[in-house]
Amino acid sequence: MTSVTATAYAAPAGSTPLERTTIPRRDLREHDVLIEIAYSGICHSDIHQVREEWGPARFPMVPGHEIAGVVTATGPGVSRYAVGDRVGVGCFVDSCRECVNCLAGEEQYCLRGETPTYNGVANDGEPTLGGYSTHIVVDENYVLRIPEGLGLDVAAPLLCAGITLYSPLVNWGAGPGKKVAVIGMGGLGHMGVKIAHALGAEVTVLSQSLRKQDDAVKFGADHYHATSDPQTFKDLAGTFDLIINTVSANLDVDAYLGLLTLDGTLVFVGVPDSPDAFRAFSLIGSRRSLAGSKIGGIRQTQEMLDFCAEHGFGAEVEVISPDEINAAYDRVTASDVRYRFVIDIAQLRD
Amino acid sequence: MTSVTATAYAAPAGSTPLERTTIPRRDLREHDVLIEIAYSGICHSDIHQVREEWGPARFPMVPGHEIAGVVTATGPGVSRYAVGDRVGVGCFVDSCRECVNCLAGEEQYCLRGETPTYNGVANDGEPTLGGYSTHIVVDENYVLRIPEGLGLDVAAPLLCAGITLYSPLVNWGAGPGKKVAVIGMGGLGHMGVKIAHALGAEVTVLSQSLRKQDDAVKFGADHYHATSDPQTFKDLAGTFDLIINTVSANLDVDAYLGLLTLDGTLVFVGVPDSPDAFRAFSLIGSRRSLAGSKIGGIRQTQEMLDFCAEHGFGAEVEVISPDEINAAYDRVTASDVRYRFVIDIAQLRD
Repeated sequence: MTSVTATAYAAPAGSTPLERTTIPRRDLREHDVLIEIAYSGICHSDIHQVREEWGPARFPMVPGHEIAGVVTATGPGVSRYAVGDRVGVGCFVDSCRECVNCLAGEEQYCLRGETPTYNGVANDGEPTLGGYSTHIVVDENYVLRIPEGLGLDVAAPLLCAGITLYSPLVNWGAGPGKKVAVIGMGGLGHMGVKIAHALGAEVTVLSQSLRKQDDAVKFGADHYHATSDPQTFKDLAGTFDLIINTVSANLDVDAYLGLLTLDGTLVFVGVPDSPDAFRAFSLIGSRRSLAGSKIGGIRQTQEMLDFCAEHGFGAEVEVISPDEINAAYDRVTASDVRYRFVIDIAQLRD
Repeated sequence: MTSVTATAYAAPAGSTPLERTTIPRRDLREHDVLIEIAYSGICHSDIHQVREEWGPARFPMVPGHEIAGVVTATGPGVSRYAVGDRVGVGCFVDSCRECVNCLAGEEQYCLRGETPTYNGVANDGEPTLGGYSTHIVVDENYVLRIPEGLGLDVAAPLLCAGITLYSPLVNWGAGPGKKVAVIGMGGLGHMGVKIAHALGAEVTVLSQSLRKQDDAVKFGADHYHATSDPQTFKDLAGTFDLIINTVSANLDVDAYLGLLTLDGTLVFVGVPDSPDAFRAFSLIGSRRSLAGSKIGGIRQTQEMLDFCAEHGFGAEVEVISPDEINAAYDRVTASDVRYRFVIDIAQLRD
């Protein structure tokens, strides 16, 4: 059995800056792997939770659910991974494994509630602590393999941002002959462009301004329109088979529904703080749908990693040192990142 | 060529009572059939339009888009129908026939706008006048065949209420092994129960009170719950694959989304006057969808009529004489009808 004390960055309490600290990681159980973390992405939801914008949270909090690293020890029953394997951990580290959704490989919708990678409670009653740390211990069934050829830095954000876009794009049939729009060109949106393009769809970005158009074209976008221009909604009426909304601000839902073709779907992956409004006729008029999607199951997350490796891309990242985390949070809330901050966790081992 | 003057019931102006009058019907063109109307259903949307609750309307208005009758003359090019055939006409009498939706047999979503059976303008520039009349002239391509064994009285409401429920039930896969709920037990809802049951689904009615429970069971409902009881929303959380909302009042959309299982869909077929609100998380949490559906295309409407005949049912109707139309309107708005008023048009020929 191996246990370690990890160095981590934690928020001691709600809305406080994150500080360097140490945390215990549990002794390895039968199916546990110990992962030495190389990179951990910064997701906007880390900030929401540290700042308790989604309700009361658990502190001290070690955020981080976009984790990439290397296996350094394994429990006696581990069969899927060996020391030296390049692996990832995403938004959850356990689930009930018995409900209909878990059995269907949709653990992210576990009916008893999946165990979040941080700000949750594991089934042993201990709080979960995330990826802003040198090590993590996770059951092998909730660990992903990062294919050779995919850098651990650009792979880390795939574990949340990547699967959050891949899952709805695949689920709603993005591919050749389909017109797909992505609302928002941030950490989620830029992955949507890359993945939808790699799936063979015709990709349009709908962003407030044309500021990131050059990047989007580089990532595979075929078209780019500013949503601040009312003409956009006239020109593109009835165009898209699928629109993925990555923005967490409230939308003029009816205006976006108007951009869908017959049987088109507008999928929310961002969570606005307050309710959105829609007119039933915006759906009825062309048998449109409004839907939501949440990350993806373990099987599909592995499929996504393999897909990205096969197509030779990861996320666009800006690698920062751990002492830049608090400044990075402010830049994320100001949408000032192209396109995902990734913490160089090796520097925590110094 | 045959042309007729029809006796009709028309609203001379907005919100005025309907009065007996006469209207011209056009000379038969190449592909027209002349239909002697036997029964015409009263749809709530007739009342909305007469009362201009959906915006300014055209007067005099002859409502009625649930029409059943017999062919009494045909244009020279008519090949699908012959004199004596039992036929029906639904919510539209023409469409562009060229757009992608028309070509797909989804004429109800015609991109240039299908021609409504009344309160619209035909492609010759003449106003369309509906089924509260002794005769109507319609292009054979927009006429349905009413199968033998289905009474014309109980068939009439199928042309709107029937197809409005059949289309989403089939489109979203209602059938054996599926749990389907129908919100509301009115003209639309009672057809939803009958059709979903005949399709083999397990059917639940969600109605304000238990007042119509006995009827629903007779129509094939397996379960019946009062939505006025908050316990309903606890007991049925995560239950249904598909919910069809037939009610046109605003709903607590999040509460109903909570009744859906993973990948479940809540389909609106009624149109509330004002927008509804929803929380994106209600969709995201279980990859649920909110959708809308509008009647059905000609091909699917024929399929629905054949399906109902095969399963031996039509609508539940209360047959009234033409001079009872205005009183019936008041009863419809008071939800005092089990379950559809049908006008005995033969009495207009006296």
